Amino acid sequence: MAGGWQDIRDEVLRRIQTRRWPPGSQIPNEAELAGEFGVARATVNRALQALAEDGWLERRRRAGTRVAAAPQRRARLAIPLIRQEIEAGGHAAAHRLLGTAPGPAPAAVTAALGLAADAEMIQVRTLWRADERPFAVEDRWVNLSGAPGFDSAPLDRISANEWLVRHAPFSHGTLEYAAETAEPELADLLGCAPGAPVLVLERHTFGPSAPVTFMRLSHAPGHSLKLEI
Amino acid sequence: MAGGWQDIRDEVLRRIQTRRWPPGSQIPNEAELAGEFGVARATVNRALQALAEDGWLERRRRAGTRVAAAPQRRARLAIPLIRQEIEAGGHAAAHRLLGTAPGPAPAAVTAALGLAADAEMIQVRTLWRADERPFAVEDRWVNLSGAPGFDSAPLDRISANEWLVRHAPFSHGTLEYAAETAEPELADLLGCAPGAPVLVLERHTFGPSAPVTFMRLSHAPGHSLKLEI
Repeated sequence: MAGGWQDIRDEVLRRIQTRRWPPGSQIPNEAELAGEFGVARATVNRALQALAEDGWLERRRRAGTRVAAAPQRRARLAIPLIRQEIEAGGHAAAHRLLGTAPGPAPAAVTAALGLAADAEMIQVRTLWRADERPFAVEDRWVNLSGAPGFDSAPLDRISANEWLVRHAPFSHGTLEYAAETAEPELADLLGCAPGAPVLVLERHTFGPSAPVTFMRLSHAPGHSLKLEI
Repeated sequence: MAGGWQDIRDEVLRRIQTRRWPPGSQIPNEAELAGEFGVARATVNRALQALAEDGWLERRRRAGTRVAAAPQRRARLAIPLIRQEIEAGGHAAAHRLLGTAPGPAPAAVTAALGLAADAEMIQVRTLWRADERPFAVEDRWVNLSGAPGFDSAPLDRISANEWLVRHAPFSHGTLEYAAETAEPELADLLGCAPGAPVLVLERHTFGPSAPVTFMRLSHAPGHSLKLEI
């Protein structure tokens, strides 16, 4: 077979999954595979690299390439804008600004972002709806030095989420999903009973030179995070 | 600068993040970048491909490469064995087989796996502990035709999770995280109050030729899913 690197990857994966190459076994080297498949060694390298990144193979510089004994599989999680996520579910997305407040953030927020306790921050609370139903409540603190101009953003017209992606994109950060139960005030906003289970996403993001924002997104009951592997 | 593709990727990413190449703008073509960086065109191609896979760039065959206007960021989620996940937290992992039962699975289970309602399945319930504290309750249904030999696996010695990874590895599947509240029986096993918030992972996995297993993993309160972006 000749083909692109994806064809080589698929054939190698087939051999792993059918156990022609069982877990822990050494596979032929790149030159041998290039010869067998009738492709360039670089093509084989690209295919094996992709399978190593997905956890199927373990590559060691001198010891060659082995099939992972207990492959650690990985899923990819796309991080859409909140609006995009609602629209991807086939709903009309709407945001309502519940309030903004400048001032110091809770210690847990500044600590997560590595900021001083008196860093200049703005708190923003937003209610997101999918069609007419509550989708999530977004509690956010924005670090002004990491997002210059945020204090004059027209947050009634553009959501803080969208303003920040356009004007202060993050370079890295942390996501954390946890289960909580709805406090009465949150339950009222989400239109659910107090004590109902709520999937909460906490996200801390950092720009190339400064922390940008801390967000807590409390989803209405029934929301789930789905991933393909 | 000369270097490997990772060096080129990092430099291109720096130019995107510092807005030297702003969102939506077209970047120089591969030949131009190869000339500037003093590397092979294939090296530039590998770097741009990686950035496109991470959502920073949009590549079109004739239109060239642009910086994504609103980059859709992606995170990678490693899928460890339950035992590995507990041990990675610095705890001793222990599993206790609560029971097994052959027989038909609930309709939601067979439907999720695309099986007939009378498919030959085995139900297994396992309690996982981290040190002495309950970590999660694992409710699993295994499709015997996708995992031959499972009915004679010594599940008191090896967990169903580990047996399946070794003997019936999956090729693809679906993960779903949701918040629930603990029913009394689950609360008793997890050592929490009924109604406490529980992060539940549902996972359906498929082998190269048949569905393998449906799992519901109900984590003790306080557990969260953390990801880097």
